[in-house]
Amino acid sequence: MSQSAYRTHYATEVTEKEIGHAVTVAGWVDRRRDHGGVAFIDLRDRTGLVQIVIYDEEQARPLRSEYVIEVTGEVRARPEGNDNEHLATGHIEIVAQSITVLAKSDALPFQVSTALENEAENKLPGEDIRLKYRYLDLRRPSMQRTIRLRSKMSAAARAALDKMDFCEIETPTLIKSTPEGARDFLVPARLVPGSWYALPQSPQLLKQLLMVGGFERYYQIARCYRDEDFRADRQPEFTQLDIEMSFASQDDVMAMAEQVIAAIWKAAGYEVKLPIGRISWQDAMDKYGSDKPDLRFGNQIVEMTDYFKDTPFRVFQAPYVGAVVFEGGASLPRRQFDAWQDWARQRGAKGLAYVQFSGGGELKGPVAKNLSAAEREGLQAAVGAKDGDAVFFAAGPRASSQLLLGAVRVEIARRQGLLKPDEFALTWVVDFPLFKPTDDPDDDDVAVGHSKWTSMHHPFTMPSADWIDRFDLDPEHAMSDSYDIVCNGEEIGGGSVRIHRTDIQDRVLKVLGIGAQEAQEKFGFLLEAFKYGAPPHAGIAFGWDRVAQILAGVGSIRDVIAFPKSGGGQDPMTGAPAPIPPEQRAETGVDYDPEAEQ
Amino acid sequence: MSQSAYRTHYATEVTEKEIGHAVTVAGWVDRRRDHGGVAFIDLRDRTGLVQIVIYDEEQARPLRSEYVIEVTGEVRARPEGNDNEHLATGHIEIVAQSITVLAKSDALPFQVSTALENEAENKLPGEDIRLKYRYLDLRRPSMQRTIRLRSKMSAAARAALDKMDFCEIETPTLIKSTPEGARDFLVPARLVPGSWYALPQSPQLLKQLLMVGGFERYYQIARCYRDEDFRADRQPEFTQLDIEMSFASQDDVMAMAEQVIAAIWKAAGYEVKLPIGRISWQDAMDKYGSDKPDLRFGNQIVEMTDYFKDTPFRVFQAPYVGAVVFEGGASLPRRQFDAWQDWARQRGAKGLAYVQFSGGGELKGPVAKNLSAAEREGLQAAVGAKDGDAVFFAAGPRASSQLLLGAVRVEIARRQGLLKPDEFALTWVVDFPLFKPTDDPDDDDVAVGHSKWTSMHHPFTMPSADWIDRFDLDPEHAMSDSYDIVCNGEEIGGGSVRIHRTDIQDRVLKVLGIGAQEAQEKFGFLLEAFKYGAPPHAGIAFGWDRVAQILAGVGSIRDVIAFPKSGGGQDPMTGAPAPIPPEQRAETGVDYDPEAEQ
Repeated sequence: MSQSAYRTHYATEVTEKEIGHAVTVAGWVDRRRDHGGVAFIDLRDRTGLVQIVIYDEEQARPLRSEYVIEVTGEVRARPEGNDNEHLATGHIEIVAQSITVLAKSDALPFQVSTALENEAENKLPGEDIRLKYRYLDLRRPSMQRTIRLRSKMSAAARAALDKMDFCEIETPTLIKSTPEGARDFLVPARLVPGSWYALPQSPQLLKQLLMVGGFERYYQIARCYRDEDFRADRQPEFTQLDIEMSFASQDDVMAMAEQVIAAIWKAAGYEVKLPIGRISWQDAMDKYGSDKPDLRFGNQIVEMTDYFKDTPFRVFQAPYVGAVVFEGGASLPRRQFDAWQDWARQRGAKGLAYVQFSGGGELKGPVAKNLSAAEREGLQAAVGAKDGDAVFFAAGPRASSQLLLGAVRVEIARRQGLLKPDEFALTWVVDFPLFKPTDDPDDDDVAVGHSKWTSMHHPFTMPSADWIDRFDLDPEHAMSDSYDIVCNGEEIGGGSVRIHRTDIQDRVLKVLGIGAQEAQEKFGFLLEAFKYGAPPHAGIAFGWDRVAQILAGVGSIRDVIAFPKSGGGQDPMTGAPAPIPPEQRAETGVDYDPEAEQ
Repeated sequence: MSQSAYRTHYATEVTEKEIGHAVTVAGWVDRRRDHGGVAFIDLRDRTGLVQIVIYDEEQARPLRSEYVIEVTGEVRARPEGNDNEHLATGHIEIVAQSITVLAKSDALPFQVSTALENEAENKLPGEDIRLKYRYLDLRRPSMQRTIRLRSKMSAAARAALDKMDFCEIETPTLIKSTPEGARDFLVPARLVPGSWYALPQSPQLLKQLLMVGGFERYYQIARCYRDEDFRADRQPEFTQLDIEMSFASQDDVMAMAEQVIAAIWKAAGYEVKLPIGRISWQDAMDKYGSDKPDLRFGNQIVEMTDYFKDTPFRVFQAPYVGAVVFEGGASLPRRQFDAWQDWARQRGAKGLAYVQFSGGGELKGPVAKNLSAAEREGLQAAVGAKDGDAVFFAAGPRASSQLLLGAVRVEIARRQGLLKPDEFALTWVVDFPLFKPTDDPDDDDVAVGHSKWTSMHHPFTMPSADWIDRFDLDPEHAMSDSYDIVCNGEEIGGGSVRIHRTDIQDRVLKVLGIGAQEAQEKFGFLLEAFKYGAPPHAGIAFGWDRVAQILAGVGSIRDVIAFPKSGGGQDPMTGAPAPIPPEQRAETGVDYDPEAEQ
């Protein structure tokens, strides 16, 4: 299929085999060099580059960067010494016979030439310019690679799922507004004035209904929508690989998901060793100060609460004290530690206590003098530090202190260059609590109900077997059958066993403070469906943009989305969103007044 | 992967090999029969049925239709004479040892048992009830088959496209409102109050930008949206297999599309002979009175304008007269022809002239006496009728008369049982006009510009090579490089070579009555992109729901969509669309008043 009306070969299909033959290629002028009255054009197409040699000055004169041309010519070996070993076509060149300019190009707002690709990324203009001229930005080989990788990822995931007999089913995106944690995008329904559709935050309820509908194994690469306030690296629309299984346990879903993960990673050229390890949520918090621990490196948090239980130091007289070792930190100057204080305060902490082990049992740093002699004595061994290391401490409520230490741990690793983008540390996080307090400061989801408890995952998550009978008596400690898959400190997917019994669902909704009438209004259809033989079911969803970003090793999910939105949900290229004319507004029905109808 | 926490085998995996072994199966109680104190349960899962035999009355007592159960038991051969040849598992049964009820079911609003599936479809309740309890409707084997077929279709199309080196790219669905023929669904942009996104009617402009971006071969199974007034068999959201190629001609796209079509049909068990035939748009209108001719049968329209050029019959003194033979129609009673008159008037025609050839050269019917002797004499031969046939005539403007005859032709075939759903007549329709009059009565699209011409396909369609220089001088006759693929009288796809040059695009927009400023506002970003080296490109899109419907042989696209909307865009299951609380409305920003800000 490389042959078309415009070419006989793709650029990189022109090999030494074609020497002496005429070929026709088509693509963009990637670069032009002139040398002794002869023009050398790097012609670029989707496969790469091939060199065109033009002896005829008339032919060469009009050609500029990013002109689209069709070239017919004879293939020859490059003259001795002119080979380019970096190029697939580096041993040949095409001597132009005829050249057709298919389209011209104005001067470019920024350069997209392949030749610049390996130079410093800071040659690129700001992201707003890149997004305004996204069609140019996409021509850059690194964007081409990334978007193609994403396509391969999707193909690999589908192949793995098809092999396991999953059925791909499309679910609607004009649905009823249901509470799932964030704000819905809404669409006025012109034909039912005063009524609105919502765009789905996920196909959660619909995939559960597909299970009630007997499909047993469903998947979909689904577009999802969340109308959130702008945050770096969030998009108003995003993609999810959404999977659900009936007659399946948590282990069944995890085993299935591991097959999918292995297939995706393989498509990107990496091998994943199965099974993927598991860590409990509590362990992840205790050891890594995060529910999405980065396991590319060790340096676990050390709990020191017991160690300091009789401490004279007021700051450490706290419900929790923990420490993280800063390898080699003892030799750093004071101002670096001051900078760490600023870093901690920017994260909302009061500061970051530390001591330095300079060697020979000596302790330095402002904390040292506040400790008892015994504490000073045993400290280095207790935290597991070597001479020359420093240690950071956090003291206070357990959860927030651990989160701070978790961030310290990652920041140290970042500065030490341990966060390698082509190294992948995957882990399951399991044994999550069923509920969390609604006032969790680390969470900007809208609370679903009107209670002090909200769902850790979502309201349809099954309590774990030993909590089914009593989760509502002790919501604080109730556990759920849910699981996240984490890679390099990012949550790339998560799921749970779902509630398939109306009685359990009713009790969960009650804990969340959702009354029977409200539940009926919001998702009565799901509760109704559960009356007619709902199978036990469980599932998982992967954040597809995030997975692509991690596998492509790029800095932002915007780099794995062909046409992303910039901050505030705007598209600098098309100008969306935009005002609409009054006639169009009138047609939407948003100004419909039911009283005026009477 | 059939093993899970709840089963060792799928129902139909239990074969004679398992005789004497214990198995565990899980699924729904499809049917229960009691016979001599023994209960026989047909257990249904996604693969089919298996028979469970329960000797223990205690165990059997609670089990009712659509209960979800897990059964462990020993497999044995069915007793002599009890084999069921219709069932994959018809030679074995499972003698229940333990039974767990996983979920109960209330009495069903309608029966979904497999046993009823082959009985008359009219056992089904009305569609509103089916949609309200869609999760039950989906359990019916025919719905399961249909949705699974659709999944296979998508997999086959993707495999064919991947093989041809296409890249799957997701395009955004929160875009700028652009005119593409129908009304946009709109989404208020909370973060930019007073501004709106639109949901895409197709990824048309975005895929063209991907071509400018150098991807060369793109596809996507894309959700599309049109806010149209209710029409039978239309959905507010629908799916399109969307494809675009750079450096490709019309023939290149058609050859590629044929590979996709062959792959899809093969997935459904049918073979398509390639290449698929082509008919020009004018021929299709002349011979079949339709731009989407049903070629499962012949019976072409015969043009009689010349034949009647000197006719004394006033009705036939028209710019066009055409005829369609009604095989065997001579013997039908008068009242049947009266019914045809009603049928024609319902379609907006004045009536339907006819004559009957009763044999022996005799002409009957009201028209006969109005014709000259010579006209009567030669008529049977001229229209190609046999003794015993009738002929319908239409006279008047060419286009509307042909459309009427085209409908007559199909209606005759329908009554003769020639519209077999498992026979597929595919054809390309090519050589379309570039423009059509805005007042075309057969078209409810919104005209894009403010002229008497609107686009036959869309404003981005390339004029054919010999019209590029003069299409704007003679819009009525200008032709385009566009093509539709038609199956059994339905348009299942269509596409065109696109304009890739700003100068041509400007001239087309001028014919459509779109001024420079308006063009700039509406799709200035596309015109801007064309300035930077846009490759020649062409593409096609398939109506995925329609293709699925045709391949599944079902009566409505709602039967190939898991959760379709009913008339008026409503979902009887969830109640969408629905009113929203005032707080939610306030947040959307639709009531934002820019003056109040000051």
